[in-house]
Amino acid sequence: MYVPTINDVRAAAERIKGIAVRTPLIRNDALDAALDAEAFVKAENLQRGGAFKMRGATNAIAALAPEVRARGVIAFSSGNHAIAVSTAAKLFGIRATIVMPSDAPRIKLETTRSLGATVVTYDRVNESREEIGARISQESGASLIKPFDDPNVIAGQGTLGLEIGEEISPDVVVVQGSGGGLSAGVALALPKAQIFVVEPEGHDDIARTLKAGSIQRNAPGIRSICDGLLTEQMGEITYAIARERFSGAVSVSDDEVRRAMRFAFRHLKLVLEPSGAAALAAALEGKVTLAGKTVAIVASGGNVDEVTFVEALRAQ
Amino acid sequence: MYVPTINDVRAAAERIKGIAVRTPLIRNDALDAALDAEAFVKAENLQRGGAFKMRGATNAIAALAPEVRARGVIAFSSGNHAIAVSTAAKLFGIRATIVMPSDAPRIKLETTRSLGATVVTYDRVNESREEIGARISQESGASLIKPFDDPNVIAGQGTLGLEIGEEISPDVVVVQGSGGGLSAGVALALPKAQIFVVEPEGHDDIARTLKAGSIQRNAPGIRSICDGLLTEQMGEITYAIARERFSGAVSVSDDEVRRAMRFAFRHLKLVLEPSGAAALAAALEGKVTLAGKTVAIVASGGNVDEVTFVEALRAQ
Repeated sequence: MYVPTINDVRAAAERIKGIAVRTPLIRNDALDAALDAEAFVKAENLQRGGAFKMRGATNAIAALAPEVRARGVIAFSSGNHAIAVSTAAKLFGIRATIVMPSDAPRIKLETTRSLGATVVTYDRVNESREEIGARISQESGASLIKPFDDPNVIAGQGTLGLEIGEEISPDVVVVQGSGGGLSAGVALALPKAQIFVVEPEGHDDIARTLKAGSIQRNAPGIRSICDGLLTEQMGEITYAIARERFSGAVSVSDDEVRRAMRFAFRHLKLVLEPSGAAALAAALEGKVTLAGKTVAIVASGGNVDEVTFVEALRAQ
Repeated sequence: MYVPTINDVRAAAERIKGIAVRTPLIRNDALDAALDAEAFVKAENLQRGGAFKMRGATNAIAALAPEVRARGVIAFSSGNHAIAVSTAAKLFGIRATIVMPSDAPRIKLETTRSLGATVVTYDRVNESREEIGARISQESGASLIKPFDDPNVIAGQGTLGLEIGEEISPDVVVVQGSGGGLSAGVALALPKAQIFVVEPEGHDDIARTLKAGSIQRNAPGIRSICDGLLTEQMGEITYAIARERFSGAVSVSDDEVRRAMRFAFRHLKLVLEPSGAAALAAALEGKVTLAGKTVAIVASGGNVDEVTFVEALRAQ
């Protein structure tokens, strides 16, 4: 098992230049007042494809040998990883096949197809995406691009942290955790910052993992508005980084996430998807001690459908 | 009458540094595809106070002699100019009085009050804001900060154009026109670009002004979802710049603006107010020939209430 370092993140930053974009770090008076802190929002919803996943997917595809890359790529994803792999594949001029649950958010299914990828849907309950993926991979020679537990993916996501570090020196970074690709990558890129990860309520495997000292799983079937954060467990590589670098893990409820989406609408003027607002929710709800500190909050994506967004605007 | 030049815009950029912020210039694949152009969105909804008005207000207040500034400022505004003057006044540590119509959007009334300004409301039909303003000014010695027809305000708004010019050399800029402070300022800052201004349908005084060769007025009582663009006529200074520099003026309907707001939600992941989406609407609806060009589209603000935004998401 190879655990990437900050040098891999720096190499990734060079590799993804011109494909993934540098996103702005935004200040806001209302946010500073709410947190009593010097707060910076990394507006990664403005990334190509609408989420941070573009960074890791691009780096992983760029790292393939040209003759391997030419046979195309395949990914399993319920959302933003699918969009990212499709977008990156299109830019590299190769074929992407995305294996997606048939009940994935409509906007994500549509967007993936519109990006030129072949979408193969499966029934979450009765079919195995791994079997479907293995068959396609055998037939076509396509390479699997993993969503998080891969050194190139982690290093790619970490470029978001490098960009933060080029503008500020945060005391604390608040970032959502799930498989841990983004949070581990950011931790590598910002070795002096405290890293607090945010999970959906009831889906707190990272909190339990850090406490137990070994990888813990989530019970199947737990629901959350944060559809992008419902990974079963951390990866082994992401855990190896988490155990060294994470300062803690906190949880947010669906309503807390909705209120953060509304705050982003009202004050930041940004459209955030639920998963992309989880870190902001944790900050606004006081789940992490931030007063007086320089804080980077990762707003990781903005791929949300109208219905979910309108519900958030009406949150209690 | 003093007509400002690009040197005044450069001086303004120095003066507003650290108060108004530099906003990002955003690229988006879906927008490029829709326009068949290399398009850049100036995301001025991410400006302090949520709109470009912060630039002009800051520059105008900064330019006052210190002993005059200390007596406070006054402004007439139905919205973003009020927020801008209040925010800037707070940062300068002086008093702001805002004279606002009682039927201004709720979010703008509330925001202005929350910024520490004294809000004096008046009845649009039966009262004269000029009389109310003159009385307050006499009593307190406060300086009137005009919304657009002032060299310092025009130069301040123009800093948005300078920032665009530091990153790209646009062939065309699409920007909303109203009093003309923003569009004239941007025209000064980008002397090589074609400037197309966008007006609400039926409120097309700039188009008529450019055609007639003299300042034309709008009939009173015309309604538009673009509440920030309902100025009666251009100013004399802004017209002096417009007549030399504007390439044309086009109109957009309420539904075209709503569709642009929805496009910004879906693809740009930005919250735009109606007035802030007018230029994007003109571009998306093909009102200006943009194919093959490098285009800067000004997204001037994001102060929109939930009800108006939800209506836009449901636009036909």
